[in-house]
Amino acid sequence: MWGGRFAEGPSAIMREINASIPFDKALWRQDIAASQAHIAMLEAQGIVGADDSKAISDGLNAIAAEYEKDGVPEDWDLEDIHMTTEARLSDLIGPAAGRLHTARSRNDQVATDFRLWVREAIDQMDAGLAALQRALVIRAGEHSRSIMPGFTHLQTAQPVTLGHHLLAYYEMIRRDRSRLADTRARLNESPLGSAALAGTGFPIDRDATSSALGFDRPTANSLDAVSDRDFAMDYLYAASVCALHLSRFAEELIIWASQPYGFVRMPDTLSTGSSIMPQKKNPDAAELVRGHAGRVIGCHTALMITMKGLPLAYSKDMQDDKPPVFEAAGLMALSIAAMTGMVADSTFNMDRMREAAELGYATATDLADWLVTEADIPFREAHHITGAAVKLAEKRGCALDELPLSDLQAIDDRIDESVFDALSVDASVAARASYGGTAPEQVDRQVKRARAELGMDE
Amino acid sequence: MWGGRFAEGPSAIMREINASIPFDKALWRQDIAASQAHIAMLEAQGIVGADDSKAISDGLNAIAAEYEKDGVPEDWDLEDIHMTTEARLSDLIGPAAGRLHTARSRNDQVATDFRLWVREAIDQMDAGLAALQRALVIRAGEHSRSIMPGFTHLQTAQPVTLGHHLLAYYEMIRRDRSRLADTRARLNESPLGSAALAGTGFPIDRDATSSALGFDRPTANSLDAVSDRDFAMDYLYAASVCALHLSRFAEELIIWASQPYGFVRMPDTLSTGSSIMPQKKNPDAAELVRGHAGRVIGCHTALMITMKGLPLAYSKDMQDDKPPVFEAAGLMALSIAAMTGMVADSTFNMDRMREAAELGYATATDLADWLVTEADIPFREAHHITGAAVKLAEKRGCALDELPLSDLQAIDDRIDESVFDALSVDASVAARASYGGTAPEQVDRQVKRARAELGMDE
Amino acid sequence: MWGGRFAEGPSAIMREINASIPFDKALWRQDIAASQAHIAMLEAQGIVGADDSKAISDGLNAIAAEYEKDGVPEDWDLEDIHMTTEARLSDLIGPAAGRLHTARSRNDQVATDFRLWVREAIDQMDAGLAALQRALVIRAGEHSRSIMPGFTHLQTAQPVTLGHHLLAYYEMIRRDRSRLADTRARLNESPLGSAALAGTGFPIDRDATSSALGFDRPTANSLDAVSDRDFAMDYLYAASVCALHLSRFAEELIIWASQPYGFVRMPDTLSTGSSIMPQKKNPDAAELVRGHAGRVIGCHTALMITMKGLPLAYSKDMQDDKPPVFEAAGLMALSIAAMTGMVADSTFNMDRMREAAELGYATATDLADWLVTEADIPFREAHHITGAAVKLAEKRGCALDELPLSDLQAIDDRIDESVFDALSVDASVAARASYGGTAPEQVDRQVKRARAELGMDE
Amino acid sequence: MWGGRFAEGPSAIMREINASIPFDKALWRQDIAASQAHIAMLEAQGIVGADDSKAISDGLNAIAAEYEKDGVPEDWDLEDIHMTTEARLSDLIGPAAGRLHTARSRNDQVATDFRLWVREAIDQMDAGLAALQRALVIRAGEHSRSIMPGFTHLQTAQPVTLGHHLLAYYEMIRRDRSRLADTRARLNESPLGSAALAGTGFPIDRDATSSALGFDRPTANSLDAVSDRDFAMDYLYAASVCALHLSRFAEELIIWASQPYGFVRMPDTLSTGSSIMPQKKNPDAAELVRGHAGRVIGCHTALMITMKGLPLAYSKDMQDDKPPVFEAAGLMALSIAAMTGMVADSTFNMDRMREAAELGYATATDLADWLVTEADIPFREAHHITGAAVKLAEKRGCALDELPLSDLQAIDDRIDESVFDALSVDASVAARASYGGTAPEQVDRQVKRARAELGMDE
Repeated sequence: MWGGRFAEGPSAIMREINASIPFDKALWRQDIAASQAHIAMLEAQGIVGADDSKAISDGLNAIAAEYEKDGVPEDWDLEDIHMTTEARLSDLIGPAAGRLHTARSRNDQVATDFRLWVREAIDQMDAGLAALQRALVIRAGEHSRSIMPGFTHLQTAQPVTLGHHLLAYYEMIRRDRSRLADTRARLNESPLGSAALAGTGFPIDRDATSSALGFDRPTANSLDAVSDRDFAMDYLYAASVCALHLSRFAEELIIWASQPYGFVRMPDTLSTGSSIMPQKKNPDAAELVRGHAGRVIGCHTALMITMKGLPLAYSKDMQDDKPPVFEAAGLMALSIAAMTGMVADSTFNMDRMREAAELGYATATDLADWLVTEADIPFREAHHITGAAVKLAEKRGCALDELPLSDLQAIDDRIDESVFDALSVDASVAARASYGGTAPEQVDRQVKRARAELGMDE
Repeated sequence: MWGGRFAEGPSAIMREINASIPFDKALWRQDIAASQAHIAMLEAQGIVGADDSKAISDGLNAIAAEYEKDGVPEDWDLEDIHMTTEARLSDLIGPAAGRLHTARSRNDQVATDFRLWVREAIDQMDAGLAALQRALVIRAGEHSRSIMPGFTHLQTAQPVTLGHHLLAYYEMIRRDRSRLADTRARLNESPLGSAALAGTGFPIDRDATSSALGFDRPTANSLDAVSDRDFAMDYLYAASVCALHLSRFAEELIIWASQPYGFVRMPDTLSTGSSIMPQKKNPDAAELVRGHAGRVIGCHTALMITMKGLPLAYSKDMQDDKPPVFEAAGLMALSIAAMTGMVADSTFNMDRMREAAELGYATATDLADWLVTEADIPFREAHHITGAAVKLAEKRGCALDELPLSDLQAIDDRIDESVFDALSVDASVAARASYGGTAPEQVDRQVKRARAELGMDE
Repeated sequence: MWGGRFAEGPSAIMREINASIPFDKALWRQDIAASQAHIAMLEAQGIVGADDSKAISDGLNAIAAEYEKDGVPEDWDLEDIHMTTEARLSDLIGPAAGRLHTARSRNDQVATDFRLWVREAIDQMDAGLAALQRALVIRAGEHSRSIMPGFTHLQTAQPVTLGHHLLAYYEMIRRDRSRLADTRARLNESPLGSAALAGTGFPIDRDATSSALGFDRPTANSLDAVSDRDFAMDYLYAASVCALHLSRFAEELIIWASQPYGFVRMPDTLSTGSSIMPQKKNPDAAELVRGHAGRVIGCHTALMITMKGLPLAYSKDMQDDKPPVFEAAGLMALSIAAMTGMVADSTFNMDRMREAAELGYATATDLADWLVTEADIPFREAHHITGAAVKLAEKRGCALDELPLSDLQAIDDRIDESVFDALSVDASVAARASYGGTAPEQVDRQVKRARAELGMDE
Repeated sequence: MWGGRFAEGPSAIMREINASIPFDKALWRQDIAASQAHIAMLEAQGIVGADDSKAISDGLNAIAAEYEKDGVPEDWDLEDIHMTTEARLSDLIGPAAGRLHTARSRNDQVATDFRLWVREAIDQMDAGLAALQRALVIRAGEHSRSIMPGFTHLQTAQPVTLGHHLLAYYEMIRRDRSRLADTRARLNESPLGSAALAGTGFPIDRDATSSALGFDRPTANSLDAVSDRDFAMDYLYAASVCALHLSRFAEELIIWASQPYGFVRMPDTLSTGSSIMPQKKNPDAAELVRGHAGRVIGCHTALMITMKGLPLAYSKDMQDDKPPVFEAAGLMALSIAAMTGMVADSTFNMDRMREAAELGYATATDLADWLVTEADIPFREAHHITGAAVKLAEKRGCALDELPLSDLQAIDDRIDESVFDALSVDASVAARASYGGTAPEQVDRQVKRARAELGMDE
């Protein structure tokens, strides 16, 4: 009847589908911390006596030591980390253990534990991103004058500097960190004391537990507090956008490392070879970073779907909130660290990059601009003349600034010697000195600002 | 060869797949505003002469008047709103029109226009949400003492007040608005002047255009500025979470309006009848709000997928950024307004709600609590006694506080008359006076706070 | 530099991000089976000698016995299940082990293993769904005459039979199984022998390995064979739609089990109580089934995103194909089994269902129909008269067929005694005898057909 | 109160949120066809008289002619295409129009119309994909001997033929078409006659309408028939996977067209230039195809989310089924046609492709294989020797087969002259003649099979 797998019938199924201990044991530190804050408050408010409170607190410390040493036992009959810990406490200190659950319920307990876990995950991701930013800024500083082709549509567009390109990712990560900061500020309210859904009749002090756990304030509505998983979605969203940013850089590194480009040699430590093709050096780490973006967004989507249309207050569907968050956190930690390694230790082949910038007619815009500003030719006509010059260079298989002056003058006799000052990739890059532009002076300026933001020169 | 539909071959396909004017015409106001700011700056910087600048500015005003009156013409050959407007400007003022595009490119232009549009969409959504909050707070104030069953797992759990329940949504919307505020702050940087991807050689003043358009500052990296669509994703995410919140309330209203519940009568103006079933009054508006959540999340997912793995800088894939944003904005405006109407004009059947609270043994927790605190019985035993009382009441088909004292005492003789003070739903609700709890005094306090936050008493 | 977690730098990160053994060890049976088929073919083709072939085959059997007994060892340096098994084979039989990898590569090996795994998962899901169908058909047969309210918009619409309602899910599951059958047929081609990407120069016999592994034929293009993950997406999609069907039934059970409905009592074995609220009996299993739908769709979305825009042939991103498939398979097995248990063992409260059908004016359509067919009144007028009757019954708080004839005649004097034959819920249900309709005779007919399809009477 | 936009309050909101006519007018042909089938059946069954039936049928023809000529009028008060047409019919023929709605409801009507529309969309997509396959097969036939580098991890792996590469996409599209065929077979059941949810008491003939509309049979359960949107999800899923396949090819074309590759010149008709950069030729069509994948998957996700957890039978949420389907159908038609154009009209630069294959040490595997088979060296040692040869060639900046024999013999003296027969890219490709391999003979064989499958030689 049960499709073979569940020989024992419904109760075996129920034990398995219902048990969250296989994954929520990850919350054990948070669960102990929240219980410690709770029992201290209950004692301070006179709800639990000092002796019982001390027994409970000591017991919790003992359990923490056990978990630290041997891991959390996985007994499906104890369902979750909360029951597992409470049952162990009861073993250790007897019936007094029962007083810990006064004026709380699993609904506010899990909401509290999970917020604490996500807050910690935010802080860890932020630290990882700061390390990635430092790596980007260091490499950008080294390459504020290094020429490479800037692409649009993956077609050579205009020369840029590698430093400028790397700082584009600095900006993206800056926004990622700001998103994490917003998420942290919004989640940092304590649900503890909301009890099952309606609050409690015991004279608790929610401000006390809130402070003890580093929250900014208690939540204002108990029904909302046990029904809310916005903080988990905010986190998964912030992770998703960050994963997208990393996927863009990973894509570039993969393309840059392919033989026809040859712009970059990935660090050996972040590449693999092939057991069958001796010449291979594969950018596996970059590919995994790109691939992980799919899974992180999948985690984000999963939780949004699960939350859709749930009536208040707590529904058991919400037990499906943790696996996506835990999975995404693990994937992000690896992705960020791997990307940091690739940024720090990749070797850029500046000759290939410069050559590609020169061969791709990337300074065609500069020729058109020179015609407008120096020869006072209307832009539309300048665009036409430039097109003819590009066609000629294409035919000759040379860069624009390798065309002899006579050839250029044959196209339009208003062109003179000084045009060559505009046609080199260096001149092109130097000219784009508007704020935020690719000119070395601008890149240096932004590197300086970034170093200050990161406190790198303190 | 083209599968029938495209008789003319590739160029007909290209015209259709490439044209964004069918949707990006929605940006016309932003496009004109950004062009006005740009030409004013070009004149101020001496890049364009005063005469040409005036001609351009007047021309843009004329075009705006035309669009306002007759709509934006859709000529696929002009591709997008930028070319459509520039072509019209050229018709109106001749070759001087060409000077408008100095020191900018479509890449920074569309990034600027789209940011302005999203900023406006944020402000409109925020205004709609404020209206919804006001409706919630007004109804919550009316119902701070109205009893209803609080549910977990959609099982009657404990009595709560309707005001408390409504305020749970106030809190969710408060977070939605805070998410919008964060999104707005993060997007409010001006990409204008980033040009194609590398900045420009013209001596532009990016601070001037930034200020003129209400941005806080110019973006710091031109490559990032034309490649970034975080602001659109942030907006779609904020919309998605808000849609989820609304879907939860919609679900509740649909359940509450169904005959076995009968908790609410939806306003006639937001219901429909049936052409075939004369007795029907369907909560269509609530169902559409719930259904729209799927589409809004779909829009959010779509843009994230589109952005995955795109190398820098601008790629044409990014033209697929606008339809999801426009669609979501329209769906959200309707959903929020419809929900506001439902909150404001629904009639709650407080008798049915109270009756359901009484019949669902919602005060069983209160009986257990009474046994603990008044009769000094350990919680586990109290829980057991209460279970017996519930079973008896179930058998009698009555509420817990309708059981005669003798029956209760037959279960446990430590129970006395005073237990009935705890068993009524009113007593139960009044007891839960912890901060954020459901007690009327707490609800009144939160209503007061909310009114202050919304400036409703000024 | 590595953000704290990775003290050893890039190589530690690489070992962790690169290792798939923590999850792909689930493929060990398939990996051994495919290797056995491969070595037998190599011997038959004269590519490997009989002695080496026997040593390899015996070695693989020994390894399978070890894995069965002790599990698969997780050594990150051995990366994946393929290398883990090959290294162990080398330990056991020495250098001859190296001949196993002749004329294959990990790219076709993993594609083969994974197809075999997914094929098995399909067969298991199909068996689970057949069990669910049997449970549905048995309960439908019991309830072909049981009246309940049929809902649209969750408003009482027309009376239906519970058997009819249950068979609606039979039909959904029938489509789910047909989707699985299509997926199985499409995946059942053998990639083995495609080697790294281009095929091999060894004189292999791909038909032989294909047959040995139960595939219908070898794949036709080696580049496609190592790049294709359609079969995994097809599986995840089939799982997603099935999860959606289950989520709909779960939603209904949750609503039906809530006190105001009281239509169903869920089996104790698939419910939980509350440690704080003694009266609670929560439909946790149904909620988890509903919640799991979000995660399964998330898995489906994840893989689609990961595959987007990957150039041929194998990219390491594709290593992210397995975790979503494994996760979804586990969630589906539990969800289907839990739903089967709920269908088989739930107790339906037919009195409450019938009462709800009677009180919801569900036969209003029947009154209108009677007026049309018996009194020859145009439908629009009949609709109007019916509306008046509904309003009157609402006012009286009674069912339509509890209104006295005189009251009905006061509304329209063409109504006579025989109208009451149409107004009962039994008459209403019996009348809807069109093919696929809710009349008991139709339900019996469909139960019979379903039993035949499932071979239940053989 | 309504957030500004809805000055008139709830009824204005309701009119807008409720109206589906702005999008479901796309169903007008299907709606008329289904009504014609329905009225013919009603007449044949004696439910409606011949005169009324003729008037209705003629009226529907007249309306179809109006819609064809002037489009469908959009009156929000008429809500949807069904009411719009019925109201017009009433204008044209008077009260007899009312008889058309006998024994049906909008619930089965819309289910029928939408199935018909999706079936037509499937047929159109299938025709487009057949055209794309023909283009692929033609180009594959031209290039069965053309050498290019085969990539894994976007690193040069082994030489393949361009024909082989193109046929990989032929296989993907073959699966896409098989998915469409499965979807079509599963959807092809007629819901007409299921009425609101329970079937009807009128003596209708569902087989007759089913046949008339080209369905295989009527649906078996009326509740399921009006609640089911599997067919729309199946279609969106089939479109999503197809979009993913196209996105992979688009990605390749974009990379191949970038200057460092230079493998392909896209047709002018499917590229755009730049108004600012005269040298640009952007692969916009390919980028839009890649970008559209995101939106199509977004549509698929949207509908799955909307359907999650909906109780039976029809809920208004299901009105959100059509916009995603219509949007995806439009995007797919364009994407498939654009890809067909790119395949048919792109110019491949075989010199650049061959050169890349030669420079990437793509035949290193062949050297290792030669050492194993010709010099009887164990593979592991052969792999080592090959690595040394690659390193030397890398240092010299030449292809493997450009190394002098003396250099190779210095690495290992068992190498002789005949090794050069294995080292050329042509020899490498020719060797891989296993079934499905890249050897020209295999490609020719598959081209022949594909031409037969497509009926191209008839």
